Amino acid sequence: MPIGYSTLPDLLPVAGVRLASVAAGIRYQDRDDLVLMELAEGSRCAAVFTRNAFCAAPVIVARQHLAARQPRYLLINSGNANAGTGAAGLQDAQQTCALLAGKSGCAAEQVLPFSTGVIGERLPVGRVEAALDAGLAGLAADGWEAAAHAIMTTDTVAKGLSRTFTAGGRQFTLTGMVKGAGMIRPDMATMLAYIACDARVEAGALQQCLEQAVAQSFNRITVDGDTSTNDACVLVATGAQDKPVIQAGSEEYEALCEAVRAACVTLAQLIVRDAEGATKFVTVRVEQGRDAAECLQVAYTIAHSPLVKTALFASDPNWGRILAAVGRAGIEALDIDRIAIFLDDVCIVRDGGVAAEYREQDGQRVMSQDEIVIRVLLGRGDISEQIWTSDLSHDYVRINAEYRT
Amino acid sequence: MPIGYSTLPDLLPVAGVRLASVAAGIRYQDRDDLVLMELAEGSRCAAVFTRNAFCAAPVIVARQHLAARQPRYLLINSGNANAGTGAAGLQDAQQTCALLAGKSGCAAEQVLPFSTGVIGERLPVGRVEAALDAGLAGLAADGWEAAAHAIMTTDTVAKGLSRTFTAGGRQFTLTGMVKGAGMIRPDMATMLAYIACDARVEAGALQQCLEQAVAQSFNRITVDGDTSTNDACVLVATGAQDKPVIQAGSEEYEALCEAVRAACVTLAQLIVRDAEGATKFVTVRVEQGRDAAECLQVAYTIAHSPLVKTALFASDPNWGRILAAVGRAGIEALDIDRIAIFLDDVCIVRDGGVAAEYREQDGQRVMSQDEIVIRVLLGRGDISEQIWTSDLSHDYVRINAEYRT
Repeated sequence: MPIGYSTLPDLLPVAGVRLASVAAGIRYQDRDDLVLMELAEGSRCAAVFTRNAFCAAPVIVARQHLAARQPRYLLINSGNANAGTGAAGLQDAQQTCALLAGKSGCAAEQVLPFSTGVIGERLPVGRVEAALDAGLAGLAADGWEAAAHAIMTTDTVAKGLSRTFTAGGRQFTLTGMVKGAGMIRPDMATMLAYIACDARVEAGALQQCLEQAVAQSFNRITVDGDTSTNDACVLVATGAQDKPVIQAGSEEYEALCEAVRAACVTLAQLIVRDAEGATKFVTVRVEQGRDAAECLQVAYTIAHSPLVKTALFASDPNWGRILAAVGRAGIEALDIDRIAIFLDDVCIVRDGGVAAEYREQDGQRVMSQDEIVIRVLLGRGDISEQIWTSDLSHDYVRINAEYRT
Repeated sequence: MPIGYSTLPDLLPVAGVRLASVAAGIRYQDRDDLVLMELAEGSRCAAVFTRNAFCAAPVIVARQHLAARQPRYLLINSGNANAGTGAAGLQDAQQTCALLAGKSGCAAEQVLPFSTGVIGERLPVGRVEAALDAGLAGLAADGWEAAAHAIMTTDTVAKGLSRTFTAGGRQFTLTGMVKGAGMIRPDMATMLAYIACDARVEAGALQQCLEQAVAQSFNRITVDGDTSTNDACVLVATGAQDKPVIQAGSEEYEALCEAVRAACVTLAQLIVRDAEGATKFVTVRVEQGRDAAECLQVAYTIAHSPLVKTALFASDPNWGRILAAVGRAGIEALDIDRIAIFLDDVCIVRDGGVAAEYREQDGQRVMSQDEIVIRVLLGRGDISEQIWTSDLSHDYVRINAEYRT
């Protein structure tokens, strides 16, 4: 069960987007595993992809197609990542685009392919092809919920949200869905996020909006520090309601960016809430740093420490492990005598040592919660950063040690 | 049970070193927990300490004393790390040095204190004091084996070695002991290593010899990426056999350095072999890099990946996880099409994709072994580096999630 999230809320249609989900039999039986997402003509599309040097075939093709033309379709499959498949995998990804283009009457470069699932197996292109007609026939504005289910792999729950927001006196709708459970699931190449809104925005401004949002959301979560070969986040602005273009730098643009950022933060947190074997949702906030880089360095050192993560799993207010992680984060000229560490509102370390007023039962109370904030005050500046992570449980090892078959 | 190591071998006396182990009752019952190591007058002493900014009180005092005077005694206790204890902890460490100095007739600055054990509790100075007379009375040249046991905390086995080596036609004896199991055990502030030989070397040359050796040994192991607050490695050259001084840069010096390096590598590997919950001893060797830094970056990314570590535990030849770790190591302009990955002699990845000749059963065979070499060829230079690590098992989580009490 995810932490603090139980079930998919109602997802509102976004004018200019239609979706269909089909059971193509790519890997799973008796469930949808192929999603077509149709974007109205004139839609703008921004995307951020994995920085892993070993990126999957669909990532390479999607990048190329996005640069070449305005996309009209996103073609997403679960069950097979088409990663580690070499030149043949690239051809497979291109071929699925060409097939959908042929049937729908657009150019192959107007189709962006996305895959998530097992690494190292060829994508069964024939099964994708056989499912396309049903997909095109089934496109509907209210297809978001079925799609949020169809893109799942080892997620325990479908994840998405809808928001309305006002910009320049007009109301807009934003709907998003995400899959992923941990930065990477066992052999599942992993995070995919799709967000659409009905605003009209130029491509450059939209890309900037997405990159800023991702920096503060999907790039601020970590489960195990592993980055997948297939990660992608797509933001669509359909402009379908024929409203004026939102210009970069305008007040309307700021409202849009804030809505996208908030949606990305919630969607990113949903991944951590559904992380492998997670029993805790943990915010690591580092304050009073000289710059964002050193705040993040400390935050990730804490979040990646197996000792901190097992202490979180054990609900053990083990301040020695947090303190040791801060100490080895590699911050230059760190004055340990100025450091304070809090678990929620409980001060555990002050002036570099255990706080005089600290009582084990207070730390124990916070650590027993499902959701915990670890706050570290560096005492050397006024910059803050925060990231979100989970604990390291028996189930994490069990899930990841189970043999692939 | 450690991997490929069962029991402490005979440890040879080193002329100029006498040791005693005493049951001081610092934390443990019915076992020795305090070691006195006496160095003959004129001995030279080199040391490398933790780089963790939160270093323990004994580390601060040992550093100061080492800089001030020639040490005559090492005073080592297990069961209590005297870490996170603030100003009071510093006084405690200084007081134990002063007490031993008073009883033995040297200056307090000639005593180096070392502590390992639980973090955040005051060192019971009275119990140390009460044990010093018995310690001084019990000093003996053949005290190494008892000492190797007395410095253990959660180690499952005592760890040490002896070697003789020839330099300039003369034979020397080198004996070392180490404690630590994982870079850090739960709340146990962790790695201590003591190596002595009967060569005569000036302090500067000895320090250089140790630093080079540590760089290739203790700084090349990782269990969970955590660095303790108390780590220390000491190298003593007693010169007790009244042989000529070994000069830096000489052939004799190279022979000494090689002997120290080899001893450090073996001792460092013993820590990994006895790592928490470890079922595999894994060498990660990265070849054909442009420089050592990028080789180590790739090696540590693999060694710290929880997904690779759980695959090792599961004996799963999961090349997708190793490949993904290489891809996210952050190497600039990495050409994935030139990369090859081997498990021992089995090629699993070539030219950036799964090797044509690879068969799952071959990978399975290697992964089922207790000791495994993961070799990554980057295809962009001629530098190699290697590190040693262990897997991530159910027992790792169990050991580290158990509550402190």
